[in-house]
Amino acid sequence: MDRDSLVAAVARQGAAVRELKKNGGAAADITAAVVELNALKAQLAAMAEPAGPVLNKKALEDLLLRKMFVVPSFEIYGGVGGFYDFGPPGAALKGNLLNAWRRHFLMEDDVLEIECTNIMPEVVLKTSGHVDRFTDLMAKCTKSGECYRADKLVEDFIENLLAKNASTLTAAEQEKHRLVATKAESLTPEEMHAVIKEYGILSPGHGAELSFPMPFNLMFKCHIGPEGTHVGYLRPETAQGIFLNFRRLLEYNAGKVPFGCAQIGNAFRNEIAPRNGLVRVREFQQAEIEWFVHPEDKSHAKFSLVADQVLTLFPKNLQLTTGKTVQMTVRDAVAQKIIANESLAYYLARTSAFVQTIGIDMERVRFRQHLDTEMAHYACDCWDLEIQLSSGWVECAGHADRSCYDLQVHAAKSKVEMVGTLKYDAPRAVDVVDIKVNKGKIGKAFKADMAFINKGLDALAADDAAAMAFEAALAANGTADLVVDGRTFGLARDMWSAKKVTKNVSEEKFVPSVIEPSFGVGRILTAVFEHTFYAREGDEKRGVMAFPPAIAPIKVAVLPLSTAKEFTPVMVSLEKELRSRGIAVKSDASSVAIGRKYARVDELGVPFGVTIDFETAVDQCVTVRERDSCAQMRVPLAKVPDYLDRLVRGSLSWADLAKEYKLIEAKKEE
Amino acid sequence: MDRDSLVAAVARQGAAVRELKKNGGAAADITAAVVELNALKAQLAAMAEPAGPVLNKKALEDLLLRKMFVVPSFEIYGGVGGFYDFGPPGAALKGNLLNAWRRHFLMEDDVLEIECTNIMPEVVLKTSGHVDRFTDLMAKCTKSGECYRADKLVEDFIENLLAKNASTLTAAEQEKHRLVATKAESLTPEEMHAVIKEYGILSPGHGAELSFPMPFNLMFKCHIGPEGTHVGYLRPETAQGIFLNFRRLLEYNAGKVPFGCAQIGNAFRNEIAPRNGLVRVREFQQAEIEWFVHPEDKSHAKFSLVADQVLTLFPKNLQLTTGKTVQMTVRDAVAQKIIANESLAYYLARTSAFVQTIGIDMERVRFRQHLDTEMAHYACDCWDLEIQLSSGWVECAGHADRSCYDLQVHAAKSKVEMVGTLKYDAPRAVDVVDIKVNKGKIGKAFKADMAFINKGLDALAADDAAAMAFEAALAANGTADLVVDGRTFGLARDMWSAKKVTKNVSEEKFVPSVIEPSFGVGRILTAVFEHTFYAREGDEKRGVMAFPPAIAPIKVAVLPLSTAKEFTPVMVSLEKELRSRGIAVKSDASSVAIGRKYARVDELGVPFGVTIDFETAVDQCVTVRERDSCAQMRVPLAKVPDYLDRLVRGSLSWADLAKEYKLIEAKKEE
Repeated sequence: MDRDSLVAAVARQGAAVRELKKNGGAAADITAAVVELNALKAQLAAMAEPAGPVLNKKALEDLLLRKMFVVPSFEIYGGVGGFYDFGPPGAALKGNLLNAWRRHFLMEDDVLEIECTNIMPEVVLKTSGHVDRFTDLMAKCTKSGECYRADKLVEDFIENLLAKNASTLTAAEQEKHRLVATKAESLTPEEMHAVIKEYGILSPGHGAELSFPMPFNLMFKCHIGPEGTHVGYLRPETAQGIFLNFRRLLEYNAGKVPFGCAQIGNAFRNEIAPRNGLVRVREFQQAEIEWFVHPEDKSHAKFSLVADQVLTLFPKNLQLTTGKTVQMTVRDAVAQKIIANESLAYYLARTSAFVQTIGIDMERVRFRQHLDTEMAHYACDCWDLEIQLSSGWVECAGHADRSCYDLQVHAAKSKVEMVGTLKYDAPRAVDVVDIKVNKGKIGKAFKADMAFINKGLDALAADDAAAMAFEAALAANGTADLVVDGRTFGLARDMWSAKKVTKNVSEEKFVPSVIEPSFGVGRILTAVFEHTFYAREGDEKRGVMAFPPAIAPIKVAVLPLSTAKEFTPVMVSLEKELRSRGIAVKSDASSVAIGRKYARVDELGVPFGVTIDFETAVDQCVTVRERDSCAQMRVPLAKVPDYLDRLVRGSLSWADLAKEYKLIEAKKEE
Repeated sequence: MDRDSLVAAVARQGAAVRELKKNGGAAADITAAVVELNALKAQLAAMAEPAGPVLNKKALEDLLLRKMFVVPSFEIYGGVGGFYDFGPPGAALKGNLLNAWRRHFLMEDDVLEIECTNIMPEVVLKTSGHVDRFTDLMAKCTKSGECYRADKLVEDFIENLLAKNASTLTAAEQEKHRLVATKAESLTPEEMHAVIKEYGILSPGHGAELSFPMPFNLMFKCHIGPEGTHVGYLRPETAQGIFLNFRRLLEYNAGKVPFGCAQIGNAFRNEIAPRNGLVRVREFQQAEIEWFVHPEDKSHAKFSLVADQVLTLFPKNLQLTTGKTVQMTVRDAVAQKIIANESLAYYLARTSAFVQTIGIDMERVRFRQHLDTEMAHYACDCWDLEIQLSSGWVECAGHADRSCYDLQVHAAKSKVEMVGTLKYDAPRAVDVVDIKVNKGKIGKAFKADMAFINKGLDALAADDAAAMAFEAALAANGTADLVVDGRTFGLARDMWSAKKVTKNVSEEKFVPSVIEPSFGVGRILTAVFEHTFYAREGDEKRGVMAFPPAIAPIKVAVLPLSTAKEFTPVMVSLEKELRSRGIAVKSDASSVAIGRKYARVDELGVPFGVTIDFETAVDQCVTVRERDSCAQMRVPLAKVPDYLDRLVRGSLSWADLAKEYKLIEAKKEE
């Protein structure tokens, strides 16, 4: 049975079991049906997540450390959990990746880019909700005082429980436990406490009782200025800086909405349990775009350009039912309201196209919608780009519709208006309530109580229905009672009046909604590492990083065949020629064999190698080698820089070049 | 009298005064001579710092804010001193500047680049000396509790004093006050207190007494992890991360010294008194290179390439005597030991070349050597790149010889060896002391005291002279006293012996010295802003940023003459063509006059403009305009992208293009 048939069989058998139970079937029949269902589910589970290519994780980790792609920070002092440095090839890879991101997302759509500070004063993050709500539940070991993230304790405990009791637990029991694990992240302290008690979870380090779980704020706190009274935080996301600058950005963009603004920069989260390399760290880099749109018109001008693209989607209803992803076009996903609007869908499509260009295996990519229970406090819809890594499916980018939450709260707190203006094509007739206040009369009547009166009148002015009701009372009785903070003031007919009028208005003010694609740069890099790493066939020890040329940290290796002095001038002039074109080069003039030199640059993911040999002086040619095929061509020295330039920039393909020069068969390199 | 003659006259008159005093000249004669000296000095002072071009600072600041080059962070909440955001053109300018820096310094010399974390654990910065010594003296207003930087209070007070009493103070008095101001930065708390008392300096805010000055650490402190016990700091410089990675970097570089490693990133200093825009901020960006060299061989392989370059130097002896800079070749500066070594000199020369390419006026650039009293705790020689800004001469980059301070302290604290290896061309005969220890005998004799004994023997092993003296004592008496921590142990002849032997050694280990060019990115940007800003002749209101094309945030403006629909396809295809080449474009299809469009893009420093007009449909040509000359040419549309590409990359000059196409005279644009 293939996978899809199996899914259908599970669904049918599940329906049969429910039918039996509902109709009061015999216990033996129900048991038999459930056994059958479990057997089908087990078959499906074995198939469900087609395992990606086998990854030799130890070999990859060894390479990444040895070649200084990523190294633990403060390593000579034993390191600190959740902090990593990028060594030379890692930093270059990251830089190239971000430049590719800029060209793909920003230049293409005229998105602005700004750079804000890492430290922010408390008022910003209090207003955004992070001071109160950016927390994880923490449970303390009552013996050692060590702190643990409570949801992770529960998840780990249940994973372990399921693994150990796979044969004895019924499918329904397994399902029940799994649901607890899935929901662990969104439990209240009380609920979490109950779960910990119910499962009897103890501290992993000492097997001791755990404290009552308490919220722990994930922001790093500091003090600004010498007085020690001004609290600041390291930003937990780059987005806030963009919201704060909204007004100026809108002006910079000549007042036009929609428009986007991006920021690439550090964010900081004082994780309770950093783990999994770059996946959960305390200091990381984000690349975020805030795309501002009219809240009632989230269409996208370039939607038609991506509408036919096919995405692998994992909507929330499927997560809770079949557990299966679905492939569909962007157009269908929006038409069927699976993705809420064009702008959100546009960015899912663009993200999908982006990760493909940086070497991610699209078979291991899906977009998962957040369950209602896991949504961040500011979001109304959210789709994660998930990439399958050796540790499972990992969120590498989020795509959230933050609605107008952030602009609204900052505007309210700062008293700075943050709105866009929609100019109508033609003036529109709009019903409005026109209020007239006789300040002189009111002033004379209420003198000392004017603060109350003004508050009451402001409330009426802000609520059309209330104003018209007050008008009706005045019209009927000649007076009406204005109640403010428990006090009552009798207003007379000649002090205040309201009437409905129709006005022609030519524009409206609105608080824009925000569509936010947000990339975790370290996670994307981890995916690139895992999806591009492989070992040469027949030689497990020869690792290769198959970075696409656009993001490879070093583009060309210049490799003299030996230490013979005659090779030096050719090497130096080739280096110079390539560098003048901005191409990163690495030479290896050491005495090791050429096969060993290739092996070294393969580990760095250098896409093209140039070998200078004794023939070069004779034929003025060098050998150019392509990393993944190991195929070689003999190319005139004079033409090599230009060819390499074009190969690296993608305007010439290896196959095209092979039409011009004879391909030398790949042979075993030693 | 020209400036140089005046300097000589001052020197001669000064000598005459000293001569008179020394020889007990008549009071009247001395007074007359001093008056003459003061008059000469006053003349010189008026000439001494030739004022740069007049800068309309208000107009520049208005432009920078309005066009979002730099805006105060958290502006809607009133801002916080010392924090600035870079808006779209500012961020792009900075990005381009850093890429130019990378190509100039890193690619050219094969310098590695890494990226480390902003948060560092206490042990790193305690070891580096920053926890104890990275402080400013702070004085508190005894009335309001406001904190002030004590040295700035003194400097401001004296500046004010000198300005107010210019006519009444003698030159000698002025000199004395100036010296106090110059040295204020390096005073101890007691000395600072004395100065504040002597001058009667009060708090600027309330005119109240100031507290005794206390050292205030400029690092932002935070806590890592949930327990709240693990102290961390935001790095005050990017350099430390490089030192921590030294061992891996050396290995990455195949063990070869010299080599360099760079880092571009944020640094944080909790300034007591942030001021002067981007010049003194609390969060800023550094671009630092650590160039590791053999401590006894600081020559540089590429020195000959810069030796003829002429630098404007301001060595410490001239600062304390003539106050005059001197121009000399790099070769002479090293030969005359004005600059301590080739590596340091190489980087001064490279920095000088770099700032020239980014639009800095070289007439307002000098390299000032640190006085012995102002050197950072880790440095043994230091030269600042100073650029004359409207606020005076400002340090924009430092070039420090940090000796081996950092590697040494980190190696000692972490117990990780951080050394390079120098392989000799031929083995060298070296005298060494060979020590033999009879552990069995010693063990039996001292059992419980072995910790003391080992400590004592280690000390002998580390000190050849002490070892040979101990050997002499054993040889003479058969026993010798080993004194450890106040306790004495009698060692016998058969327990320990030492002798001098000659060994052939083929290599040596050494702790590298570090030459560090360190750029303050925000300060460099400030200099670029001030040195490139000007107003169009005859129109004070039309500001222009004359950024060189390489760093201009936007390279090309595409400007349809009007809103006529026929211009749109030309504009769109030109935009697309240019963007596909990675060229940043800005279009303006609004209805304002073309002169106004030019004015807008001039403010953004866009070097080239392309106007599409009604003729374009007829002749398939567009008008290309150069920003600073306002000169225009009519160029075929098909050729424009390629020309612009080359103009922007600098492989084609405007003058060269003008040979091919008729130059249209610059005319007044409205």
